[in-house]
Amino acid sequence: MDEALAAALPSESHWPPTIHRAVRYSLFAGGKRIRPLLVLAAGEAAGGTAEALMPLACAVEMIHTYSLIHDDLPAMDNDDLRRGKPTSHKVFGEAIAILAGDALLTRAFHLLADAPPAARGDDVRRRLRATAILGEAAGTSGLIGGQVADLEAEGRTDVSLADLERLHRAKTGALLAACVVGGGVLGGAGEADLARLAQYADAIGLAFQVVDDVLDATEGADQLGKTAGKDAAAGKATYVRLMGIDGAREIAARLLREALAAIEPFAERGALLRALAVLIVERHA
Amino acid sequence: MDEALAAALPSESHWPPTIHRAVRYSLFAGGKRIRPLLVLAAGEAAGGTAEALMPLACAVEMIHTYSLIHDDLPAMDNDDLRRGKPTSHKVFGEAIAILAGDALLTRAFHLLADAPPAARGDDVRRRLRATAILGEAAGTSGLIGGQVADLEAEGRTDVSLADLERLHRAKTGALLAACVVGGGVLGGAGEADLARLAQYADAIGLAFQVVDDVLDATEGADQLGKTAGKDAAAGKATYVRLMGIDGAREIAARLLREALAAIEPFAERGALLRALAVLIVERHA
Repeated sequence: MDEALAAALPSESHWPPTIHRAVRYSLFAGGKRIRPLLVLAAGEAAGGTAEALMPLACAVEMIHTYSLIHDDLPAMDNDDLRRGKPTSHKVFGEAIAILAGDALLTRAFHLLADAPPAARGDDVRRRLRATAILGEAAGTSGLIGGQVADLEAEGRTDVSLADLERLHRAKTGALLAACVVGGGVLGGAGEADLARLAQYADAIGLAFQVVDDVLDATEGADQLGKTAGKDAAAGKATYVRLMGIDGAREIAARLLREALAAIEPFAERGALLRALAVLIVERHA
Repeated sequence: MDEALAAALPSESHWPPTIHRAVRYSLFAGGKRIRPLLVLAAGEAAGGTAEALMPLACAVEMIHTYSLIHDDLPAMDNDDLRRGKPTSHKVFGEAIAILAGDALLTRAFHLLADAPPAARGDDVRRRLRATAILGEAAGTSGLIGGQVADLEAEGRTDVSLADLERLHRAKTGALLAACVVGGGVLGGAGEADLARLAQYADAIGLAFQVVDDVLDATEGADQLGKTAGKDAAAGKATYVRLMGIDGAREIAARLLREALAAIEPFAERGALLRALAVLIVERHA
């Protein structure tokens, strides 16, 4: 995956070098690559080749990384540490950090559009559909809308469970779902299989966030590679605050069962999707 | 054009409303719509329909607007005024301004990918190619690279004419060229016509920046709708500083002649392209 990502970017010697250094600094900062793995798992469950899936796998990791860089900015969450390393704006300054995020977002869509000239009509059509799915997930009803709602919820004590679900569905769930459904589209899945993948994606998207909240409340900074207990300190609404640690863990376990049930019809082809769902719910950082 | 742009965006009542207000504030702030007009002019010269061209026409204006919002941020050029109105971060705060830029960039690519389901193979292929052209122009070898180079050139006195051309070719020229060539692609132009359009685009792209420098040195803030004489105050390398006002005007006139010569073979179909080239060089703000 790291090789594919490196090949999808201009080298650090390209003009102007600063921006390429900043882009690589964040993209190769030890991310777990869960999103690209979801693309490959869903695409292979649908019968697609790694070659057809790789542009989307790279694109989703670029978009995830851009969102982290921008979320960490002083004007947003003002984080100094990400995955145990100083954040982009701490190393390169705010201007370059903003532009590095812009560059990753732009490159993600550029990559998806750069179809090989010999691509068949079907491939081109699937490529365009996957790009539209990613655009929706990264936009104001997904990633960006979720970040806006998150900023606006900070310090408020009247955030309901429904508000919280909507926020996280947008901020975390939408991109995870785009990985799964977009991977299915590129892999050539039919509409019935796409509906199953969407159900799976909804469940793991929410589970991902619930587990995040539990980890923020239970693990130390060493484990997380970022400031721990930050949600409570910021007065953020979390699943843990609303239902306690045990209640949140129960929700995560229920969501895992739902995700696994949705992809049962894939049988053997769903092995990687099943493993990823378990990994997401049982991770410790 | 404003109607098409408004229809391409979620309404202000969509969740979360703040971001949609911010996006519309900047997108409808009195821009001259030169880039969408270039898309339509080039596409119609190639025989395309307005319907096929409109997604790109909207996308280029969104990308232009995103780049203005981010360039104006305190961490970048720190501008309080744009087109005579307070800049986005002055009205909505830095966090929302950054996210409004992100939203416009994302929506631009999303819009291009959202082909009507009945689109023929040819349309889909052209759509993908135009998206790739736009991605290249908006990326680190275009818009973003130009902004990085611009930030790094600030206050330096050893910037050569070659450095300056490279900077502006990236920061201004690349997107203008993508409008023209992308419009040609969507309009169905053959490779020979695309080469003519690229030549035209190169000339007007550079002319655009030269005229910008002349206006910054000769017009008042009332005319420009932004702080005047800012380049000189910031110690920026400009064509005017390197060759004087008359020298810069001569270059602009030469570039206009080159642009018009390149599209001579279009004859009548090139009328709108010719008018836009003249408009760009003879504008007063």
